Amino acid sequence: MQTLTSNWEVSALVRQWQRDGERIGFVPTMGNLHEGHLRLVKAAQQNTDRVVVSIYVNPMQFAPHEDLTNYPRTLDKDLQKLTALNVELVFTPSDEVMYPEGNTGCSYVEVPAQLTEGLEGAYRQHHFRGVATVVTKLFNIVAPDVAVFGEKDFQQLLVIQQMVKDFNLPIEIMGEPTIREGDGLALSSRNQYLSKQERVIAPKLYEVLSETRERILMQNMDLTDLEQAAIMQLEQQGFTPDYVAIREVATLAEPDNPTDLLVILAAARLGQTRLIDNLRV
Amino acid sequence: MQTLTSNWEVSALVRQWQRDGERIGFVPTMGNLHEGHLRLVKAAQQNTDRVVVSIYVNPMQFAPHEDLTNYPRTLDKDLQKLTALNVELVFTPSDEVMYPEGNTGCSYVEVPAQLTEGLEGAYRQHHFRGVATVVTKLFNIVAPDVAVFGEKDFQQLLVIQQMVKDFNLPIEIMGEPTIREGDGLALSSRNQYLSKQERVIAPKLYEVLSETRERILMQNMDLTDLEQAAIMQLEQQGFTPDYVAIREVATLAEPDNPTDLLVILAAARLGQTRLIDNLRV
Repeated sequence: MQTLTSNWEVSALVRQWQRDGERIGFVPTMGNLHEGHLRLVKAAQQNTDRVVVSIYVNPMQFAPHEDLTNYPRTLDKDLQKLTALNVELVFTPSDEVMYPEGNTGCSYVEVPAQLTEGLEGAYRQHHFRGVATVVTKLFNIVAPDVAVFGEKDFQQLLVIQQMVKDFNLPIEIMGEPTIREGDGLALSSRNQYLSKQERVIAPKLYEVLSETRERILMQNMDLTDLEQAAIMQLEQQGFTPDYVAIREVATLAEPDNPTDLLVILAAARLGQTRLIDNLRV
Repeated sequence: MQTLTSNWEVSALVRQWQRDGERIGFVPTMGNLHEGHLRLVKAAQQNTDRVVVSIYVNPMQFAPHEDLTNYPRTLDKDLQKLTALNVELVFTPSDEVMYPEGNTGCSYVEVPAQLTEGLEGAYRQHHFRGVATVVTKLFNIVAPDVAVFGEKDFQQLLVIQQMVKDFNLPIEIMGEPTIREGDGLALSSRNQYLSKQERVIAPKLYEVLSETRERILMQNMDLTDLEQAAIMQLEQQGFTPDYVAIREVATLAEPDNPTDLLVILAAARLGQTRLIDNLRV
């Protein structure tokens, strides 16, 4: 496994592989790799000839009050895990490589408001601008044929798909299902912020989503009432919910048709930790 | 010469050429080709193995009050000129190909304000957003090694260069000097909007730029005074000037150092026609 910090070296190596007729898979990460990430890598490996993983905590997608400084950085362990999976190339750029002139005066990508202004976008200012911009940059550096993202960040996955379509990027975007602990808690780097007591409560987020799904399937309650009920349940468990939203799965629009395919999305804080999760109906 | 309207066909054909080891040049245009465009094509041909030209009047870069509807469209003549130059491929997409969901709800690119909010950006709302977005799309479809732009649209050239750098696009951007009529008028598709009388006045724009350059080189006048003097000269000739600005050539910032390399940029209306031009000092 090669680990490169220079964008030029990554580009040159991948171009060489592509000239040899190989298809390239790409998994962009912020490191602190867990089983969820490794599943994305395996999915990429099953669909391409060589896989590139990037590890970069992107400052542009953090709002000023968020956890950029404290975000867990565990590069040595991450590289061990990727070596064990026989990943070909890991790209670990510095901020100077990614934003040589800083990330505030950099060109950026904005994905349409209907996908980005609600849900996470309403609570994390310019978050999706930061995500879309760094993914654009990484896509241009790596030039993969396939890129894999986790469905845990469901809105992010749709934002990337929309951007790829709007900008005619010649890249196939794959979404992979969320990996959960035995008690249902979705794997996330932010889970390690949880105290012991909070860790006991955390799986209730998934329980509430599951119950809400059951209630939707019984079809005897208004969706807005179900959202409100879920928010109250979360509050009773000790969460401070940002939102619980039942949305149309392809656009995240509010459903207006009984045959719409739905997804339930939620974000809730538990102490200092902000958890998100989602469940398709 | 092939003429294709489908982005997929263009991508596939160019990929095939690149697999054969050829370097691809690209000249994006809005059609109505004149000697200025043809010079860009020739420059691309001198630096690459095959050249792709796109002809597309991009609605996203026109403000509502501008000349989108009346912009001259002369496809048959354009194709004849490109055939005569032995261009390999012309991409002539429809609005449906470029913006299948319309150009208002499309992801877009924003280049930093210091390059885009002044000069043309101050008079043409969201113009550079439209330019950067369509160029991003065309770059992703064509995936050229080299792209050529005219220095006549000097601010646009810098905007594209900044975007390519910020987004790590693996494309070399070349700028080619402005081509002028014998009397100094910069070639432009919009020149044909001019009445006979306006056409006589139009070359004064370049004359005023040239005089301003002489005065800068004599170094005995304040730059702001020179800008004001140039604006008054244009008004006396019958123009309605939007701006005359003496700027640092690499950033378009206001000069703050006597050793700065300078460019004089101007935009002025003559009747219904808006002319722009620039001159390096």
